[in-house]
Amino acid sequence: MKPLSLEVERIIERALEEDLGHGDITTQSLLPPNLQSQGIILVESRGVVAGIDVAAGVFQRLDSSIRVDILSNDGIWLEPGTPICRLEGNLPAILAGERVALNFLQRLSGVATLTARFVEAVEGTRARIVDTRKTTPGLRLLEKYAVRVAGGFNHRFNLSDGILIKDNHLAALQALGAGLEAAIANARRNAPHGMRIQIEVETQVQARKAVAAGADALLLDNMSPAEVCRVADEFSGRVILEASGGITLETVRAAAESGVDIISVGALTHSAPAVDISLDLGAPL
Amino acid sequence: MKPLSLEVERIIERALEEDLGHGDITTQSLLPPNLQSQGIILVESRGVVAGIDVAAGVFQRLDSSIRVDILSNDGIWLEPGTPICRLEGNLPAILAGERVALNFLQRLSGVATLTARFVEAVEGTRARIVDTRKTTPGLRLLEKYAVRVAGGFNHRFNLSDGILIKDNHLAALQALGAGLEAAIANARRNAPHGMRIQIEVETQVQARKAVAAGADALLLDNMSPAEVCRVADEFSGRVILEASGGITLETVRAAAESGVDIISVGALTHSAPAVDISLDLGAPL
Amino acid sequence: MKPLSLEVERIIERALEEDLGHGDITTQSLLPPNLQSQGIILVESRGVVAGIDVAAGVFQRLDSSIRVDILSNDGIWLEPGTPICRLEGNLPAILAGERVALNFLQRLSGVATLTARFVEAVEGTRARIVDTRKTTPGLRLLEKYAVRVAGGFNHRFNLSDGILIKDNHLAALQALGAGLEAAIANARRNAPHGMRIQIEVETQVQARKAVAAGADALLLDNMSPAEVCRVADEFSGRVILEASGGITLETVRAAAESGVDIISVGALTHSAPAVDISLDLGAPL
Amino acid sequence: MKPLSLEVERIIERALEEDLGHGDITTQSLLPPNLQSQGIILVESRGVVAGIDVAAGVFQRLDSSIRVDILSNDGIWLEPGTPICRLEGNLPAILAGERVALNFLQRLSGVATLTARFVEAVEGTRARIVDTRKTTPGLRLLEKYAVRVAGGFNHRFNLSDGILIKDNHLAALQALGAGLEAAIANARRNAPHGMRIQIEVETQVQARKAVAAGADALLLDNMSPAEVCRVADEFSGRVILEASGGITLETVRAAAESGVDIISVGALTHSAPAVDISLDLGAPL
Amino acid sequence: MKPLSLEVERIIERALEEDLGHGDITTQSLLPPNLQSQGIILVESRGVVAGIDVAAGVFQRLDSSIRVDILSNDGIWLEPGTPICRLEGNLPAILAGERVALNFLQRLSGVATLTARFVEAVEGTRARIVDTRKTTPGLRLLEKYAVRVAGGFNHRFNLSDGILIKDNHLAALQALGAGLEAAIANARRNAPHGMRIQIEVETQVQARKAVAAGADALLLDNMSPAEVCRVADEFSGRVILEASGGITLETVRAAAESGVDIISVGALTHSAPAVDISLDLGAPL
Amino acid sequence: MKPLSLEVERIIERALEEDLGHGDITTQSLLPPNLQSQGIILVESRGVVAGIDVAAGVFQRLDSSIRVDILSNDGIWLEPGTPICRLEGNLPAILAGERVALNFLQRLSGVATLTARFVEAVEGTRARIVDTRKTTPGLRLLEKYAVRVAGGFNHRFNLSDGILIKDNHLAALQALGAGLEAAIANARRNAPHGMRIQIEVETQVQARKAVAAGADALLLDNMSPAEVCRVADEFSGRVILEASGGITLETVRAAAESGVDIISVGALTHSAPAVDISLDLGAPL
Repeated sequence: MKPLSLEVERIIERALEEDLGHGDITTQSLLPPNLQSQGIILVESRGVVAGIDVAAGVFQRLDSSIRVDILSNDGIWLEPGTPICRLEGNLPAILAGERVALNFLQRLSGVATLTARFVEAVEGTRARIVDTRKTTPGLRLLEKYAVRVAGGFNHRFNLSDGILIKDNHLAALQALGAGLEAAIANARRNAPHGMRIQIEVETQVQARKAVAAGADALLLDNMSPAEVCRVADEFSGRVILEASGGITLETVRAAAESGVDIISVGALTHSAPAVDISLDLGAPL
Repeated sequence: MKPLSLEVERIIERALEEDLGHGDITTQSLLPPNLQSQGIILVESRGVVAGIDVAAGVFQRLDSSIRVDILSNDGIWLEPGTPICRLEGNLPAILAGERVALNFLQRLSGVATLTARFVEAVEGTRARIVDTRKTTPGLRLLEKYAVRVAGGFNHRFNLSDGILIKDNHLAALQALGAGLEAAIANARRNAPHGMRIQIEVETQVQARKAVAAGADALLLDNMSPAEVCRVADEFSGRVILEASGGITLETVRAAAESGVDIISVGALTHSAPAVDISLDLGAPL
Repeated sequence: MKPLSLEVERIIERALEEDLGHGDITTQSLLPPNLQSQGIILVESRGVVAGIDVAAGVFQRLDSSIRVDILSNDGIWLEPGTPICRLEGNLPAILAGERVALNFLQRLSGVATLTARFVEAVEGTRARIVDTRKTTPGLRLLEKYAVRVAGGFNHRFNLSDGILIKDNHLAALQALGAGLEAAIANARRNAPHGMRIQIEVETQVQARKAVAAGADALLLDNMSPAEVCRVADEFSGRVILEASGGITLETVRAAAESGVDIISVGALTHSAPAVDISLDLGAPL
Repeated sequence: MKPLSLEVERIIERALEEDLGHGDITTQSLLPPNLQSQGIILVESRGVVAGIDVAAGVFQRLDSSIRVDILSNDGIWLEPGTPICRLEGNLPAILAGERVALNFLQRLSGVATLTARFVEAVEGTRARIVDTRKTTPGLRLLEKYAVRVAGGFNHRFNLSDGILIKDNHLAALQALGAGLEAAIANARRNAPHGMRIQIEVETQVQARKAVAAGADALLLDNMSPAEVCRVADEFSGRVILEASGGITLETVRAAAESGVDIISVGALTHSAPAVDISLDLGAPL
Repeated sequence: MKPLSLEVERIIERALEEDLGHGDITTQSLLPPNLQSQGIILVESRGVVAGIDVAAGVFQRLDSSIRVDILSNDGIWLEPGTPICRLEGNLPAILAGERVALNFLQRLSGVATLTARFVEAVEGTRARIVDTRKTTPGLRLLEKYAVRVAGGFNHRFNLSDGILIKDNHLAALQALGAGLEAAIANARRNAPHGMRIQIEVETQVQARKAVAAGADALLLDNMSPAEVCRVADEFSGRVILEASGGITLETVRAAAESGVDIISVGALTHSAPAVDISLDLGAPL
Repeated sequence: MKPLSLEVERIIERALEEDLGHGDITTQSLLPPNLQSQGIILVESRGVVAGIDVAAGVFQRLDSSIRVDILSNDGIWLEPGTPICRLEGNLPAILAGERVALNFLQRLSGVATLTARFVEAVEGTRARIVDTRKTTPGLRLLEKYAVRVAGGFNHRFNLSDGILIKDNHLAALQALGAGLEAAIANARRNAPHGMRIQIEVETQVQARKAVAAGADALLLDNMSPAEVCRVADEFSGRVILEASGGITLETVRAAAESGVDIISVGALTHSAPAVDISLDLGAPL
C-alpha cells in the first residue's frame, strides 16, 4: 500500500481521536479484546468512490496488523453492492475504525460523484471542471483529491499558490485612486514569476481592459451565458477564460460550449450529498 | 463576545493554516498592509444560520483588533439579504479570513437549515430529531452544535459517551454462542453506571427480547413504518424508542406520529447542502 | 503486543520528552552507542501491577528493535521479586527509557493496588468501587485503566460523558428561583437520551424529592452511615445509589453493606502511594 | 498576575481538554450560559499549598474575563478553612474549570506538604532535601516547582542537565573491562564543562576510589546510616555527598546529622497524598 | 504592533522552548522575579536588518506586558550602534528572551544583508534577484521574508506552489521514452491553470526545444555567461529567463546585463554570515 | 539504521511539511506514481559531513520502503565527489525528499566543517573548541551535534542546563547594591548541586574576585590576548577558563596557547557557509 502523505496521516489521527473519545465502551463491555474477524466495505448507492487509501489508513493507524485488500479503485463508477476493500484482523479495532473510515469514504465519494457528473456533462468540449476554495474546513486536501480523481482539476489550494485579483481588491484599489490596470501591473511587478495573473471581471468591457493590461487569465464572474459567449469569442486562445458562479449540471454544457477553458463549481465541495457506503462484517474467525 | 472552546480555537487555527499557506500573495502584491475597511456578512439564500461566533473567531484569530459586531443569532431562519455580522478593521486580515469564515458559516448553516426542516416537520409530536456520528471528519463538534441550535438533539458524540449495541456486536457474540440477552447483561455489568443501555433491533420479536432482557432504549433499525408503529404501540413509555434508517423529510412526520421518542437522521450532517453566505466589503476607511 | 491507543502513544511521547531533554548525556559520555543488553523489570514491594503495556511502549518508542517479553499480567497481586517483563536490546535506549517506564508502572500500580484493597473489602456485597475525576492532570486515561484492571469501575471520564447535578448547580438554580425538580426536568429535557440523570443529595428528604422528580441515580454526598442506610432501605433497586465522601478502607465495608450500588473513592487516584518497581540490568550481550 | 511559562500553559490546556471532553453537558442542560458568580478556593486540610498561579491559569484559559484574586502564597502552611483565592466571573466557565484547578492544587500541595515536613525535619543541619526523577509523567515541571516552593531543592530535571554515573553504567563498563576510574575519566573528558561529575557508590571503598578518580559528588546509595557517617567523616567538604534510598521522615534527621550535603527522597513526588482543597461557590451575581 | 502570522507565532514558540528548557536557572538563582528594567537592541556591525517584529514577538510571547518600541525598519542599511528597538518590562523575561530574539535578528539580517548586496549589484538592469529552496529547515518563511524586505524576490516556497521541470524529471521521462516536449505537454495538461511552466535547460539547443514546446519560463542551469547571453538574445521578452548556478557578487552584474529576467542565488539563504546584533540592558527601574 | 531521537523526528516532519506544501505538483504532473529509481548523495565541495542519519530519516519518513545505504560517516573530511549514501526506491518520494535532505546536510556539514577547522587549529593544546547558544532557531539540537561530531564540545544547550552569570546579571545586582561575590554566593546557594558556577569577567581584577568568591569557571569575555594570558597564568588548573569573543581561525591558536581550557566561538553556528552537496539520480529501475 502506498504511504499516505504526512498531512493525511494527521487528518486521520484527528478524525480517530474525535470518534474514539476515551475508547469504544460498548465493544469493551461486550467482546473479548482479541477476537479476529473479517469484513467487506461495500458501495450501497451508485457513485464514484474516492478515499479508499484513506479508509485503509484509518484501520491501519488503529492496528497495523489489520490486513486491508483493496478491491476497487478511486475514481470509477461503482454499482450498488460492489466491494471496495476487504478487512481482516482484530474485531474491536475494526469496529473502532468503522465509522471514521466510512465517514471519509462517504464524503469524498460524494465529492467525486458530483464532480464526475459535471466532467461527463462537458465531455468533448475544451472546458475543464475546476473546484474552488469553498471546501470543508480541515478537509481541503482530501476534497481536492476527490475532485482530481473524478476527472476535475484544482483551482488554488490556498491564498499562497495563485494570484487571483477579485472585486474586493479592485474596490479597495479604486478607493485609493487606482484602477484595474494598476492592479494588474502591481501583481506583475510583485508576484512570484511562476504565477499567472488572473483577474475577476464582470463585463466584457472590464475583460477588454484586463487583457489590454496584460492579464493572463480572466474569471468571468456571474456573467450571463450570452456575455460569456461574447467574451469567449473575443479572447479564447489569447488568455485563459474561466466561467464561474451558479453553474449547475443543467447549465454546465452550454457554458462549456461557449468556448471557455475552465468552469469552476463551488458545489463540488460545498453541497455534494454523501454516497452510501457500509461495512459488512462476517463471523469472527 | 463569549470565549470559544479550546477545541473550536484549534479547529479555527487549522482551517486558517489550510487556507493561508504561506500568505495571501494576491493581497500582499496589491494593497498597502495597513488599509482599514469594513464589511458585512450577509445571507444570500434563505436558511437557518449557525456558526456566527466561529466566523467572528476566525477574524479575531488573525487580528485581535478587528471589531466584529454580531447582528443576528444562530438558530433562526433568515431571509436573503439579512446581515449576520459587521466587521471593521485591517483589510488584508479581513480578506485573509474571508473564505474560512464563510466556509464555516456555509457548512454549519447548511446543517442547521436541514435540521430545522426536520424539526418543523415533527412539531407537536413527542419525537426528537437526533443526529448521528455520520459527520464530516474533524468538524463533529461544530456540526453537532449546528444540529442543537436548530432544535435538534445529539446522539453519541463518540464511542465513549454512550452504549449502543449494534448488529455487528450481536453477530460477533452469536458466533461465540451468546445472544442478545447476554449482550445486554454484559453491558449492564461492565458499562459505567451513568449510561443507558441502547440496542439496535430489526424486528418486533427482537424488540421484545431486548426489553425483557432489560434494555433501556431500542434503536429500530430500518424497520417498515408499520413495524415501527407496532413496536411503539407495545413499548412506548416503557423504553426509549429511536427510529433510524432512511427517514426523509417526506417520511419523518409519519415516523414521529408512530409514537417513537427519537428519530435519528444521518443526512443532517452528511448530505446537507451549503447555505449561500457572502462578505460585502465597503470602501476602505 | 497489542497496539496502544493513540492517546497513550501521546502520553508516552510527552513523558519521554520530559525525561530525555536533549539526550542522556551521562550514557553518551560513558558507553559505546551500540551496546546490547538485557534486563528484567521486577516488583520490589507487594502490589497489583498495572501498566505493563505502557512500560513496554516506552522502550519501543525509543527503539522499535528492543524486544519486550511480558512475564506477568496487569491486575493481579504480585509478590516482591516477581518479574514483570524482560527487555533485550540497545543498552543506551533501555537506560534512556528506564525512569519513564518505571514512573508509569509505579504510579499506575499504586492506583491499582489501592483499588484492589477497596474491591476486596467489599467482596460479596452488591457495591461497585468507583473512581472519581480527582485524577492526576494528564494521566486520567491511564489512572482510570488502573482502577478497572484492579476490579474497580469508572465514574465519568469527563464533563461530557455523564450527567451529574451537583450542589453548585442546585445553588445556582435556587438563586434563579428554581428547585431540584426543575433541575431534573431540565436535564431530562436537554440531555442526550443515552445518559442517566444522577443528582447529588445530602439528606433523605432531598433524596425523596429527587426520586419523585425522576432522577435515575443519586449521589449520597457525605451522608452519615446511618442516613445512607435509611436511603438505601427506601430506594435500593429503584434508583442507582452511590455513596461518596471520605470513605476509607476502614469504613468501606459498612458502606457496602448498607445496600448502595456504588461507592466512589477519590483517594484511589489522588492519594495512592507508589508501588516500588525496578529494572535489573544484566551484563551487556 | 505573572505570566505562566509556555510549558505550564500547555499542561493546563491538556488537563482542560482531558476533563472537558466535548463540553460540560450537565451545566449546559441546566443553567443559562451568561450567569455570573463568585467563589472561594479553600484549604480543607492543613497543608502547604502550591500551584495557586496554575489554578488561576486554568480559569483564565477558559475565560479571560474571570477575575482571580489571589489571597495566599505558595509555600506556606495553611490551616483548614484558609481561603487561597477568590474567583468572580462566568459561572459555567468556573464550573468547567473547577475540577482541573483543584486537581492541580491538591496534587502540588501534596508534594509541597510532604517536602515541607522533610525540610523541617532537617532544619539546622547542612543538608538539603532534594527530589528525584520519580515524578508523575507529564507533571515534572510542576512537581519540582512544588518541591522548591516548600524549601526543597531539585536534582536533575532530566537526563540532559546533569551527569550521574549509576550502577547500571558501571556494570556495563565492567563487562567491557573498564572500571569506575575509567567511567569518571570518560565523563570528565566528554561531558559539558559546566556539569559536575556525580557517581553512585555503595561502599566506603567505592567512595574512596571515586574521590581519588576525581568525582565531584557521590550518591551514597542505600548505605547503612553507619556507613554514611563513615563516608561523611572522610569526605565531607571535599566532595558533595548525597544520601539516597529509603529515607523516611523518621530517619531523615539522622541522615542529615551524619554530615551529608544532600538527601534525596523519591517519595516527595511518587507517594505524597493529596491535600484536600475545595471550591465554595456563592450565589449567582 | 501588527499581528504575526500563525506560522511565525509557532516558530517563535518552538525557539523559546528550545532555549528555555525548564527555565532560566541562572536568573532564577540570582535575581528577584519582579525586577523591571529597560534595554536597547543595537546593530553592532553594518547591515540590513530584518526580523524586528519577530524579535518583538519573542519578548511579548514571554510576557505580554513587556513594552517594545520599534526604532528602525526592516530592510534598510544600518550603521553600527543604531538602535533597533527599545524594551521595557520584567527583567527576568527580557533575559529569558534575549538570546532567541537576537538569534532571529542575526540570522534574518544576515540573509537581508547579503540579498541587499546582490540587489544593489544589479541595480538598473531588468534582473530580479531571487532566492531558492536552499533555506534553513524550519525557517523558510522568515528567510524568504528577509529576502523580500531587502529588495529580492521569492522563487517557489515549496513543491506545491510552482511548476519547475528539472533535469531529474527529464532523465526519468527519457528512460520511459519521453522527451522534453512531452514533459512540457504533460505539465500543461495536468498542472493548475494559474501556474506558469518553467523548465531547467542546460544548452541553447534545449532552450529552443523548450520554447517551441510552449514553456513559459526557462531556468538556465549553470550555463556559461556567453551561453546565457546567446539564449537571452534569442528569447528575451518571449519567455521568462532565469540564470542560476554559482553566481556570486562578482559575477552577478554581468549575468544581469546579459538580459535575463531573474537571477537565483542559493547563497542568500544557505551561506549568509550573521549580522552582529546585541542587547544593551540599562539599570533596573 | 539507528533510531532518530523524538526531537529529530519532529524537526524532520516540520521540514518536510514546509517544503512539500500540499504536494509536489511538478512530479505529479509528469511522472507515474510508482516509478522506482536509485541515486547517490555526493559531496561537491571539500568538507566535513554531518547529518547523514538525518538525511536518511527524511526519505524514510516519506516512504519507509526507500532503502538507504550509508557509504560514509559523519565527522570526517570528504573530498569532492565522495558518495555519502545511496538511495533506492520510489522516485516521486525521493524527489519529494531531495531538497529537505540536502538542506539538512548542507547546513550541518557547514557547521561541522568550520568546527573541524577550529579544532585542527588548536590541536596539541589543552583547549576545547566549544559552541554557543547563537544557533539557528529550531535547529540547535542538530547544530550542536554537528559541532560534537567534528571534534568540538557543547556549551549550554539552553538556559536550564548550566549556570552562567553574565554582565547583565551583575549590572542588575549592582543596581540592587549587591556585587559579584553575592552573585556567586546566591548561585551556589540556589542552583542545583550538579552545576558548576561559571561567571563572565572582563578584567583580571574581576577574575581574581570571582575565584576568591568561589567560582568554578570563568568566561573571559572579549579580553585582549595579553590579558587572557595573564589570567591563565594566574588561574590555570584552579578554575576552568573559557576565552570568548571575536576569536577567529587566525587568532584561535594563540588563544589556545595562552593556556585556557575552552574557547567558545559563536561563528561555528551563526556564520558557517554551507557545504555543497547534491543528489545524483540514475535512470528509473
